[in-house]
Order: sequence, then structure tokens, then C-alpha cells
Amino acid sequence: MTNTTTTAHTNIALIKYWGKKDAQLRLPYTDSLSLTLDGYYTTTTTAFSDATHDQIYLNKQLASTKFAQRTKNYLDLVRQKYQVEQHFIVQTDNFVPTAAGLASSASGFAALAGSLNKLLNLDLDNTQLSRLARLGSGSAARSIFGGFVRWYHGNDDETSYAAPINNANDIPIRLLSVVFDTNTKKTTSTTGMEHAVQTSPYFVTWPQIVQQDLQQMLHALDQKDLKLVGQIAENNALAMHALNWTARPAFSYFSADTTDLLAFIRRLRQQGLLAYATIDAGPNVKIISSTDDISVVQQQISQHYPSAQTTILKPGTAIH
Amino acid sequence: MTNTTTTAHTNIALIKYWGKKDAQLRLPYTDSLSLTLDGYYTTTTTAFSDATHDQIYLNKQLASTKFAQRTKNYLDLVRQKYQVEQHFIVQTDNFVPTAAGLASSASGFAALAGSLNKLLNLDLDNTQLSRLARLGSGSAARSIFGGFVRWYHGNDDETSYAAPINNANDIPIRLLSVVFDTNTKKTTSTTGMEHAVQTSPYFVTWPQIVQQDLQQMLHALDQKDLKLVGQIAENNALAMHALNWTARPAFSYFSADTTDLLAFIRRLRQQGLLAYATIDAGPNVKIISSTDDISVVQQQISQHYPSAQTTILKPGTAIH
Repeated sequence: MTNTTTTAHTNIALIKYWGKKDAQLRLPYTDSLSLTLDGYYTTTTTAFSDATHDQIYLNKQLASTKFAQRTKNYLDLVRQKYQVEQHFIVQTDNFVPTAAGLASSASGFAALAGSLNKLLNLDLDNTQLSRLARLGSGSAARSIFGGFVRWYHGNDDETSYAAPINNANDIPIRLLSVVFDTNTKKTTSTTGMEHAVQTSPYFVTWPQIVQQDLQQMLHALDQKDLKLVGQIAENNALAMHALNWTARPAFSYFSADTTDLLAFIRRLRQQGLLAYATIDAGPNVKIISSTDDISVVQQQISQHYPSAQTTILKPGTAIH
Repeated sequence: MTNTTTTAHTNIALIKYWGKKDAQLRLPYTDSLSLTLDGYYTTTTTAFSDATHDQIYLNKQLASTKFAQRTKNYLDLVRQKYQVEQHFIVQTDNFVPTAAGLASSASGFAALAGSLNKLLNLDLDNTQLSRLARLGSGSAARSIFGGFVRWYHGNDDETSYAAPINNANDIPIRLLSVVFDTNTKKTTSTTGMEHAVQTSPYFVTWPQIVQQDLQQMLHALDQKDLKLVGQIAENNALAMHALNWTARPAFSYFSADTTDLLAFIRRLRQQGLLAYATIDAGPNVKIISSTDDISVVQQQISQHYPSAQTTILKPGTAIH
């Protein structure tokens, strides 16, 4: 029996993905750009089953949650796409704290796609794997690769996939995950982005912002200008959250702590530290910093917010 | 000697003014719509002086602050406009707590324009007075009138003035001013709007949002639909603040308390209370409510935020 065990790391978008133009194929309105993170990852093993249904284990427990249902839907899709009849046993171990607001669906569907690639002898290369992972979760398309990654939005299944940005891999970037709130988010990213796309009057401008931020980000990565990388990422994240804020009715992933921390990060910058914020579909914040400054940033955050959990994250590797 | 004493009330914009297309003439990019408030007002008396400079008294004290300089600049403008040679003594009493984040410049320049109208025997009607007040502070154009007021943005000095919306005056609206932070704001509205106009990628859409919100607001006022009035006002305020959030570099008038209170107001609505937020160039919040619900809203806010100062405000009258 083949060893189908596959590990994929989660990723954080520095240029955000917000809005699907095709919900079924998970085709985004815009390109996005991410950093794959070490430390937080998913390991998945798949096997054929003689049963008449799929069995999904999450962290050694048989799962019957939304997670299991979403996984089964994905397996249906894979069965149809590759004309497979059999059911599967999926064993997933998640080393992504849900509370961190980091998408375990990104590493999860990347690892699942990778494992099925081995089990079904599909012999897909990483570009093909990126497309396949995308069908499970948009951001999973990016978790196939290590380091900085660009997801080309494309126009159809064939043209929407991610690729690594190889010239940026020696940038001394570090991230600090700051967790205030360990409750699961109230509005999922799928629901949130759909509402923002449909109702925010600013959404028409969002694709232009992404286009401009992306070009500047590619330039900043090329120049290895980490300060500029942080600046663009923070600007882009705020522009993304402004879409939610101006959805009608408005919603926000920010808590009072989020707003307070954003102001505190500005003060860290005034002290000369490299510190920029990026925020996803939850109240917690990831601070973009450098190998030089990350320890001081962590120390200052821990002093100012004693109840926050902080974790330093480094760039992570491709699926393996 | 003529009695030149004039009182003007401050106003709160329900459809915001954010962005000048002519800084000198204070011509805004968009129309705006406000409610003049009782309780908070400015009383100004002017007289001719034999001195070679203007003397500005604020709350019985000779003033030499930025306020005094701005007032003197305005007096220069009035001297030039009406070919007056003499200098003035201006006595201003401000019954607008600066901390409330309510523009004392609105009531201040409205009262000053009104007083000068009497002193110089200009015989200006309220429309002409609105234009004259506008040259001191944009929002002062609206404080000439009572109740709900629309400021037509216009294309030049002649066409940019405010007028009352008379059919809405029996709407049972009440506002609750909630003050967390009694520090003066860090970014003035003039500086803030200029930075947002120049750098927010969403600014191109702002005039369209105002146009749409204004039409809906006029309809809501016509229908006396106070809930809809509140909803549109909150949406419009958030769209205005999104411009600051997406300015580059970003800035925000919100504090952690502001974000927290916005979420709390959503919870008040879930309880069936009429409560919507509007926020200007500071961290404090004004809650739009009704004569029926305002007491309960005040009670709930005071319980949840014991250190906040709350004040109930009613619609105010025209300049007199």
C-alpha cells in the first residue's frame, strides 16, 4: 500500500482574496499573494474504504461536523472529476490552532488534494495540484507552495492557480500571531465576502486596489524592501476590511482589541520598529516584522496585552 | 448701538461632508445633510474697535489660540468682501463641549456671520448668511437653519449654501451623545479629509455613495421612517470613516471604545431598540434614537459603559 501521507502548511495573505466570481469553481475576482507559514500545518492520510460512505477522522476522532460534510462534498467532486467509484477513509491532523484565525481550510484542502494525488496515482504536478486544492478552499491553492506565493485569479478552472515567487525567499520576514479571542469567528469568510461583494458600494474599486497593491508588492519583494512589504500588506488588509464595514448592513471582524492593537502597532513604528498588521476573517492580528525586530515586538505586545497569546512564525515550505 | 448678539446651534451630519474641492471657498465635493441640535450652541457679539487689530474673546477670556487666528483670518475675509476698514471686538461664548466631538466651528462661524450681518447692516437673508458662514467653516453653512438641513455643494460661492428640509420637522428623533475620550482630536477634520481625498483609493466612489444615501435619506425623512433615517446615517458614517481607514498611510478616529460601542449598538437593535450610530472626526459616538427609546438606550449605555458621559439631544432651532 502506498504511503499517501501529505503535509501542507497554512498561509497568510499579504494581498487579500475577498470575493468569488464563481462560487462553484472558487474563482476569485482578483489575484492574491501570500506567505506560507511553518509551524502551522495539516497532515492528511487517505485510503480506499469498502464502506458505502466516506469516513473522516479529525485529530484521531471520527468527525461529523461541518468540517466532515465539507470534506465529503470535496470527495464527491474528486470522485466525479476522476471517475472513481470507491469511498475513502481520510485521517487529518490539524496543527493549526483554529483560534489563531489562520485558515486551517487552506492547509487542510492542500494536504487532502496532495494525499489523494498519491492514492489515486494522478501524478499531478504542483500547478495541477494547486487547481485541485482550490476546488476545496480558495486559499488552499496557495498552500501547495512554500514561501511567497501568487494566486492568479484566472478566468476558468484551468487558468486559476498559484505559483511561487522564488526571488523573494531570502527576505528576513517574521510574523507575530497575536490572539485575543479564542472563540470561533461569527461570520465565515465565505459568507462575509459574499455579503461584501453584493452590498459594499466600494467593491467596484477593490479589484483596482488589489491590482495596484500587487504590482507594488511584487516590486517590494524584488527589492527585498521588507518595510514596504509590511506597509502594502497593512494598507491592503484595511481596504479589504473596509468592504465589510461598508457592506449593508455593515459587519466587522474587528473587536475593540483589534482597533486598539492597530493603534499600538503605529506607536511601535514610531519607535523605529518594523511592525505592520494584517487581519483576516476574525479579531486576531498578525504582525509583519523582521528577524531583527520580532523579539522586541513580541516583548512589547506581551507587556501591553498580558492576556494575549503571541507566537512567532517563519516562512514555511511547500507541500510534502 | 445695535444689539449684535447672535446665537447659532451646532449640527450633526447624518450624510457626511468629507472632502473639499475648493479649500479657499470651502466648496465640498458632495451635498450633505444634518440635524441642528438644541443644547449645544454658540453666542457671539461683535462690535467695532478703534484698535489696529482684532480682539477675540472666547468664554470671557482674550484668546490667542488657533481659534483666535482662524477667527481673525475670517474677519480679514469679511473686511475684504464688504470693503470694511475697521477692526472688531468679538465676544464668543461656546456652549459646545469640545470633548463631545461636535463641531463648535459650525455654531461658532454661523453665530459670527450672523452677528457681523447685524453689525455691518448687511441685511443678508439666511441663504446669503449660509454662504457667508460657509467661508469660515463648511459645516457652519448648515447651522444657520434649524431641524434637518441640506447643504447643496454647488459649483461656486453663489451656488454652495444650505436650506432647511421643512417637511421632516415632526419626526420624533433624539440623539444620545456618548463621550469616552475628552482629549482633543489628534487629526483635525480639515487635515483628515484632505489626506483621505488625496490618498484613499475608495474616494472616487464616495460622491456616488453620498448621492445615493442622500436620495434615500430624503425619502426616509419624507416618509417619517426614523429607523431608515438611522440606518442610512450609520451606513454613510461608516463609508466616510472607511475613507480614512484606507487613506495611505491609514488613520482612524476610532478608539477601542468606538469599535466596542458599534457592536453594542447592534445588540441594542437586536433587542428591538431604535439605535444607530454616527461618528465624526473623533472617537465619540452619537446614537440616533427616538423619543420612545432614547431613555432606555441611555440607561443601557450608562450601565455598560459606566465611565462614559451621556447627553440626550433634541432638534434645535435656526440662528437667532
